[in-house]
Parts: sequence; C-alpha cells; structure tokens
Amino acid sequence: MPIIQCDIRRGRSPEQLERLASGITDAVIRHTGIPLDYMFVVVRQHPGASFIEAGEVVPDYSPGPDGKDLGAVEWEARRAAARDREG
Amino acid sequence: MPIIQCDIRRGRSPEQLERLASGITDAVIRHTGIPLDYMFVVVRQHPGASFIEAGEVVPDYSPGPDGKDLGAVEWEARRAAARDREG
Amino acid sequence: MPIIQCDIRRGRSPEQLERLASGITDAVIRHTGIPLDYMFVVVRQHPGASFIEAGEVVPDYSPGPDGKDLGAVEWEARRAAARDREG
Amino acid sequence: MPIIQCDIRRGRSPEQLERLASGITDAVIRHTGIPLDYMFVVVRQHPGASFIEAGEVVPDYSPGPDGKDLGAVEWEARRAAARDREG
Amino acid sequence: MPIIQCDIRRGRSPEQLERLASGITDAVIRHTGIPLDYMFVVVRQHPGASFIEAGEVVPDYSPGPDGKDLGAVEWEARRAAARDREG
Amino acid sequence: MPIIQCDIRRGRSPEQLERLASGITDAVIRHTGIPLDYMFVVVRQHPGASFIEAGEVVPDYSPGPDGKDLGAVEWEARRAAARDREG
Repeated sequence: MPIIQCDIRRGRSPEQLERLASGITDAVIRHTGIPLDYMFVVVRQHPGASFIEAGEVVPDYSPGPDGKDLGAVEWEARRAAARDREG
Repeated sequence: MPIIQCDIRRGRSPEQLERLASGITDAVIRHTGIPLDYMFVVVRQHPGASFIEAGEVVPDYSPGPDGKDLGAVEWEARRAAARDREG
Repeated sequence: MPIIQCDIRRGRSPEQLERLASGITDAVIRHTGIPLDYMFVVVRQHPGASFIEAGEVVPDYSPGPDGKDLGAVEWEARRAAARDREG
Repeated sequence: MPIIQCDIRRGRSPEQLERLASGITDAVIRHTGIPLDYMFVVVRQHPGASFIEAGEVVPDYSPGPDGKDLGAVEWEARRAAARDREG
Repeated sequence: MPIIQCDIRRGRSPEQLERLASGITDAVIRHTGIPLDYMFVVVRQHPGASFIEAGEVVPDYSPGPDGKDLGAVEWEARRAAARDREG
Repeated sequence: MPIIQCDIRRGRSPEQLERLASGITDAVIRHTGIPLDYMFVVVRQHPGASFIEAGEVVPDYSPGPDGKDLGAVEWEARRAAARDREG
C-alpha cells in the first residue's frame, strides 16, 4: 500500500537502481509492518538540470571511484562556498 | 537532491514515522553516495479509503502487537481469498 | 504496475470515491491489458483553496442534486465571464 | 480541477495512450460531475526497471497479440511462483 | 522545505528552464519567508502527448518569435472553437 | 498545461497561500509563454513532521513578525550547528 516515488538524477547503473529500490523497500517494511507484496516503488530519473535547489541548477550525476557521486561532491563544495560568502 | 515522496495510510506514531524516514534516508545515501545534507523526504498520510488496489478499497491502518499492521493483515487475507476464487 | 494519483477537492462520499477509483481502474486495465491485481490508485483530497487554476482559487466542492458539483458550476460561470471580459 | 497523474511503463502506441487518458477522463467526469473542461491528466512513461514492486524489478512492457502486455503476463507468473514458494 | 514539482512540455532551452525555476523559487521565498537554502524544485519534461486536458491531447511545445509557445497558441484556438461549438 | 505541485508545511493563511500560488503562476507564464488559462497549481499542506531533510524532522511552521517563518529560522540554526559539528 505504501507508494514511494523517487526523483533522482539519471546515470546510475541498473544494479545501483535495484539496490536503491531494495534498500528503500526493506526500510519501509521494517518500520511499517507492511507485507512485502504490497510495496510499490517508482524511480524517475532526470538530468541534473531538472533539479534546482537553493535557486541553483544541480550538476549532473557523474560516477567516481567507489560509487562516489562527483556531481554531488561539486555541489557540496559550491553550497559551502555560498554559505561562506553569505557570512 | 533525491526527492522521495511516500504516500502511506495514516495512524502511525511520530516515532514510527521518524524511523521510517530515517530508514529511507539511510538506504538512499548508502546506495547513491549522495551527502546526507541533500536528502529530502516527504511523507503524506491518508485514510485507508484513499488507496484502491486491485480495484478494492484498502482497510485503515490499525496497530497490533509488535507494530503489526492489522489492516494489512486483513488485506492480505482478502487478496489471497480473491486469488483462490479466480483459480 | 500503473500508479495513478488523483488530487481532487474534498467532500465526496466514500461511495463516490470508491466509484471514482473503480472507474479509473477499469479504464486503465481495459486500455493497457494490465491485470487487475497490479493496479494502484491513490486519491488525495484537499479544500478547493488548494487548487489555483488560471491564477484563481477554485471554489470548494459542494454537492447539488444528482451528484452535481455546485462549486464546479460556479467556477465554470466565472471562467466564462473572465473569457468574455478578455474578449 | 482534478489532476490525475499516471506513471506507467513505456512502449504503448500514441493511440493506446490517448484511449487510456480518454477512459480515465470519462471515468472521472462521470463519477465526480466535474465539467470536461477542467480535467487534467498527465501520463509519465518509464522503463520497466523504474518500477520495483514487492521488492522486485518489473519487466518491460512488451506488446503481444490483442494489445496483451507480455511483460505483465511474465510478472504475474513470477508473483504467483513467489507466493507458492512462501506457502 | 517546500518541494515544488513542475510537469511541463519538453523543448525549452536550458536557459529558459533555469529562469523558470528561479522565478518559481523567488515567488516561494517571497511569499513564505522560507530561506533560499531550503527550496527544492524539480522540473519534469514530457512530450505534449503526455498531457490530456479537457479530454484532448495537447500539442507539443514549439518555440515561436519572442519565446512564444506556438503549441499553446494552437491549443488555445482549439479550446475556443470547442467552447463555441458547445454554445 | 504546466502542472505545478507544491508540498509545504501547513499553517499559512488563505491570503498567504493565494499570494504564493499567484506568484508561482506569474513566474511560470512569464518564463514559458503559456496562456494564464492553462496554468494549474495544487498546494498540499502537511505538518512539519512530514518533512524529513538531511535525516531530521523539520519543525512546524510558526508565524513570526513580518510573515517570518520561525520554524524555518530554528531549522536554519540547527543545520548550521550540524555543519559546524561535522567540521
């Protein structure tokens, strides 16, 4: 019965997406007591430019070593710099 | 950057909802490499009657022993009976 | 597998909501060939003021004779008047 | 005023999608009394792998004879087998 | 904290999409007092045929002079004609 | 044709919600060239506890002087403290 919708940046492998959805499914059934049969997850993928956070376009996902998301690393650095500028 | 939307039946305690959201957050950061700071989850709660699955209204959530969801147990029994009837 | 989300104005009876969801379910299985068992519908209900269309707040649902939606009738009259003004 | 969002697997023809949306529209106006002019439907299409149900990735849509959805047939067989295994 | 989801027809330039998201972001922070850092917007793009309004498929976006949306102009003419026919 | 969905914390006045929706509507028509008549906005309101960001429950909206959102002010302080702790 739970319907879980995920909007994420595109570019992850089918295996990563499957692990992501399995992890979410496990978390929901563990914390709600819902039987596995009634768990529905949909994952929608978009370019980074579809996400605008704090008024800025988010970089694309770009896979680094150990499944690291280099776009997210860049984003984190930019956000930290923006906060420094704002004092 | 991931935006996770959860539509679930209402009635769980604030602690259950918080564990649910934490579990989802952990699953997403583990499997995507996204920094914790950029994880957004929204949980919308509705009466059971807002969910219509396999053409039938889902029972309300009703808490049983050990966090069991008695509405889901009833639902599972009804779905099994429906499949038996269909052969 | 199809996930159908409906955002409508609140105020309809449980029977109306059930007929609404059944009608949607029937339409989807007839036109997609999806088995009934894999049809998920969620109906979220909101006050009229949650809907802003053509820049204006929509009136609340208000039941009239024969299941007529008096708020929608009022809305239709206002939209027609707005179009007349705009020429 | 009703906003209907459909997330389905991709691969259906434009004619199928149009019949699907028309069928949903008809069902909503019949059961809510909403004028046709205020009906909004959006259909989002995704690969099967975007849908994870009961913890498993759903097969792609694959058109069979008479508009049958072969991916759904496969899915139904796998779900029945899973239920048999679980007893 | 506000999560804003936009489903629009595809075809606009990255610059248009960025201005669109910035405009929405500004409107939300001005009218809610939310700090800029906590504003999340996702823009999903679809072909015109994904939108069915008043029971009819919407034309694709097609850019005209001055950023005009020629598909919307065509749509507006068709809707006006439909209303004339209905009296 | 654009469908804009807003999930925000509850507690704002009808006037604030109307200004919010009008501001969003204006931003979308200015930057897309869409006629006003085809703009649809839905605003869903939830308690703060429905929003879990960076793994933490967001405080409720609480109106301060000049439309300030005191819950957001508290949130911003907590996020800044968390970032300081993480170094």
